[in-house]
Amino acid sequence: MTNLLEKISTYQQHVNQQLSQYIEKANPTSQKLNDVMAYGALLGGKRIRPFLVYAVGEMLGSSKQQLDPLACSIECVHAYSLIHDDLPAMDDDALRRGQKTCHIQYDEASAILAGDALQTLAFDIISHPIDGMSATTQLKMVNVLAKASGDAGMCGGQSLDLEAENKQIDLASLEKIHAAKTGALIEAAVTLGALSDEALPLEHLHALQQFSAAIGLAFQVQDDILDIISDTETLGKPQGSDIAHHKSTYPALLGLEQAIAKAESLCEEALHALAQLPYNTELLESFALYIIKRDR
Amino acid sequence: MTNLLEKISTYQQHVNQQLSQYIEKANPTSQKLNDVMAYGALLGGKRIRPFLVYAVGEMLGSSKQQLDPLACSIECVHAYSLIHDDLPAMDDDALRRGQKTCHIQYDEASAILAGDALQTLAFDIISHPIDGMSATTQLKMVNVLAKASGDAGMCGGQSLDLEAENKQIDLASLEKIHAAKTGALIEAAVTLGALSDEALPLEHLHALQQFSAAIGLAFQVQDDILDIISDTETLGKPQGSDIAHHKSTYPALLGLEQAIAKAESLCEEALHALAQLPYNTELLESFALYIIKRDR
Repeated sequence: MTNLLEKISTYQQHVNQQLSQYIEKANPTSQKLNDVMAYGALLGGKRIRPFLVYAVGEMLGSSKQQLDPLACSIECVHAYSLIHDDLPAMDDDALRRGQKTCHIQYDEASAILAGDALQTLAFDIISHPIDGMSATTQLKMVNVLAKASGDAGMCGGQSLDLEAENKQIDLASLEKIHAAKTGALIEAAVTLGALSDEALPLEHLHALQQFSAAIGLAFQVQDDILDIISDTETLGKPQGSDIAHHKSTYPALLGLEQAIAKAESLCEEALHALAQLPYNTELLESFALYIIKRDR
Repeated sequence: MTNLLEKISTYQQHVNQQLSQYIEKANPTSQKLNDVMAYGALLGGKRIRPFLVYAVGEMLGSSKQQLDPLACSIECVHAYSLIHDDLPAMDDDALRRGQKTCHIQYDEASAILAGDALQTLAFDIISHPIDGMSATTQLKMVNVLAKASGDAGMCGGQSLDLEAENKQIDLASLEKIHAAKTGALIEAAVTLGALSDEALPLEHLHALQQFSAAIGLAFQVQDDILDIISDTETLGKPQGSDIAHHKSTYPALLGLEQAIAKAESLCEEALHALAQLPYNTELLESFALYIIKRDR
């Protein structure tokens, strides 16, 4: 696990550096917009999606230089979605990771525009020719990123999530929301890393996609669990009342014990998918375990 | 001119049909989000950018089927920008083309998300393999669309425009705003149409780009002029007071007469660029003239 945490931290620093270079060198029409984009994109975060791009891509023999644009483009999409989710009309959050959200630090119009422009930057970065990669593969990657981010993926999931607020929904609906809202982009990160190896056999791609679907959902289940545990510790109020007042979560629908079992079984699924692969999957295995063992 | 208006109307109907198919067949995660996207994208409009894609592409021998995704993707970007521009935090407009804007018809969160997802749809559509077009060309097109839409183009221009509100700016600054805010996407429409002919000589591409830069700016100058004329007729107040209260426009900076002369000289520039081309440029010529003769 120590090795994993070091790796996560190394990739995190690396991708932050790359991201800030991409934003700075953008030769902006408006310096202000560029500043807001940089603020929003560099607010912190573990950079889980870039980590997955690098971990999968390097496992398959791709170079960091080839993976940089893929990692940065997917993080731009994630960053834009956080900026827009924090807006008053959406989740109305003033703080993220202990720092002022974009619309608080600047203003609402700038936050909307910075989110818009970060989404565009994602597609700008990923469509710039990459050394040693065919245009056919890159075009496919653009499409993978778009499908995961839009109507059928992340945006669709966020819309479902807003519709479900203050409503009682069932497990299938909850799973649909999370598969789209967070799962799709996590799967895309793994798929982009995988596609960077243009000779990858289709069955290996499929195993990696099984792995990513499982960890994507496990990630969300664990988030829901941590929400409960963290509330209990910090607020000192009983779990039950917390569940009763929250919108639908896995612990609310399954109970805490079953939710933990669900996360563990998803982790098993992820490990099982990795076992089908003839590569050194050690780092991805530790990551699958980390997802359900992390405490923040 | 009759022929041009018929052509514009034919392409308009065609692109609306194509757009609504793209949105409907998106197999949405959230039906509501899909409805808002369709509402926002199909609110009307002359579809000038798709017209330019078709007019340039067909002039060069590309098929309508090849041009459809290019026309639709650029219109998705334009449509998303209008939805976001209308938001309370931006221009706060309740009506567009006589119909309720997205956030009035639905709600603000939905309008933000629908704009986001329409931008993504643009990149989804344009990255789907097109018959008879190489992946290299398509990847280049994705990049052209991204560059025109983001920080260095449309979003950057909108940011500058917001910064310039209630300020006195000079002609160079005004031109910079418009070149980015509206010019970049109009130029991209012409470039996408041009790139659809993969054998197009570079000097012809450059002539078409000169044409598009000139009509892009002429379009904005004429918009500013119409704003004055239309106000005078409908409100019956003297032009001078109108200019005094508005944010910077070409007539405000140059005077109405000089603004009209500027539009005419840009039209001349556009026609001059077309004269360098060995194709049937009749439709594009009428369009350049139409830009500065239109009354709405």
